[in-house]
Amino acid sequence: MSDKARRWTVHQRDLLQSCYVFDLEALTCAPEGQDPQSSPLTSQYYVLNSPDFVNVVALTDQGQCVLVEQWRHGSQEVTIELPGGLVDAGESAEVAARRELLEETGFEAKDWILIGACRPNAAIMNNSCTTFLALGASKVAEPQFDGGGEHCVTSLRGWTEVVEAVRSGRIDHALVVAAVCYARLHLAGQ
Amino acid sequence: MSDKARRWTVHQRDLLQSCYVFDLEALTCAPEGQDPQSSPLTSQYYVLNSPDFVNVVALTDQGQCVLVEQWRHGSQEVTIELPGGLVDAGESAEVAARRELLEETGFEAKDWILIGACRPNAAIMNNSCTTFLALGASKVAEPQFDGGGEHCVTSLRGWTEVVEAVRSGRIDHALVVAAVCYARLHLAGQ
Repeated sequence: MSDKARRWTVHQRDLLQSCYVFDLEALTCAPEGQDPQSSPLTSQYYVLNSPDFVNVVALTDQGQCVLVEQWRHGSQEVTIELPGGLVDAGESAEVAARRELLEETGFEAKDWILIGACRPNAAIMNNSCTTFLALGASKVAEPQFDGGGEHCVTSLRGWTEVVEAVRSGRIDHALVVAAVCYARLHLAGQ
Repeated sequence: MSDKARRWTVHQRDLLQSCYVFDLEALTCAPEGQDPQSSPLTSQYYVLNSPDFVNVVALTDQGQCVLVEQWRHGSQEVTIELPGGLVDAGESAEVAARRELLEETGFEAKDWILIGACRPNAAIMNNSCTTFLALGASKVAEPQFDGGGEHCVTSLRGWTEVVEAVRSGRIDHALVVAAVCYARLHLAGQ
């Protein structure tokens, strides 16, 4: 067994379908240094090009965490998640996080700390999700949803209750679980 | 603001593209109880139908965690992850986790404990990822990769080193971060 993982080169990239929040592409790939015409490993891999994501662990001065409930068309259920969304073109992750928190919940926060960044799905997606801890959160406005179907319901839960909901599976979106992991590591390290 | 999140009904489901490890579908949806012909919110949403995933926090009796390094075509880099993969049709999550651990790393384990299940991406995917803690792991064989391009390099790292790699971002696949979160919660609760 080699002691280094094989690297690959993309030789062709075909857009198959634009899907509003992501593009589906087929990549024709061969192991690095191999001729794609003759390599027996040359293959097509399907990937999603997607904008980056952000999410926010927003805590009030009373230690309550801001959560959103919304319908998810992938899992076909109402989920409990942290506020978050897509980073717009030209926008920084922190600006996007502040915007999403305000739009989805009407909350702002005083102190913003980047606590982690993950790959939502390194196997099939090219983007990252950056998590912020937002301290001193308070409600300053009503939520502002875009003209489409977006619709969230905001709630506040104690932080230990949020961690317990991850443990029990009531909160189960992987990117929210990852964000809770980053927040626990950050808060434990203080 | 309503105090309940809006629910939706799928009125049509169109397969757009089969992509080997997932199918891309377009769902035509309207809010629950609304006529899709007349609702102004009737929209198409793109989702991936995917088999379920599993991953494994496999610890040796010496407290070392089994990791795999592999090329990821989504992020176009070599990642460090936990062993895992797709659940085959008709297979239980635990059987799939045992199979993936053995195939990817040549390790078996004595005690298998389900410690969490998450939605890899509730917004666009319909599947779940189940995480197992596998105790008493030891190497019993050489890895067995399928005929295609799969290729992993196994390494062992202390558990605190794995947690530190999540904190630093060196380990950043969201499903691995989620699995580490479940393992920390389980191990803290013992």
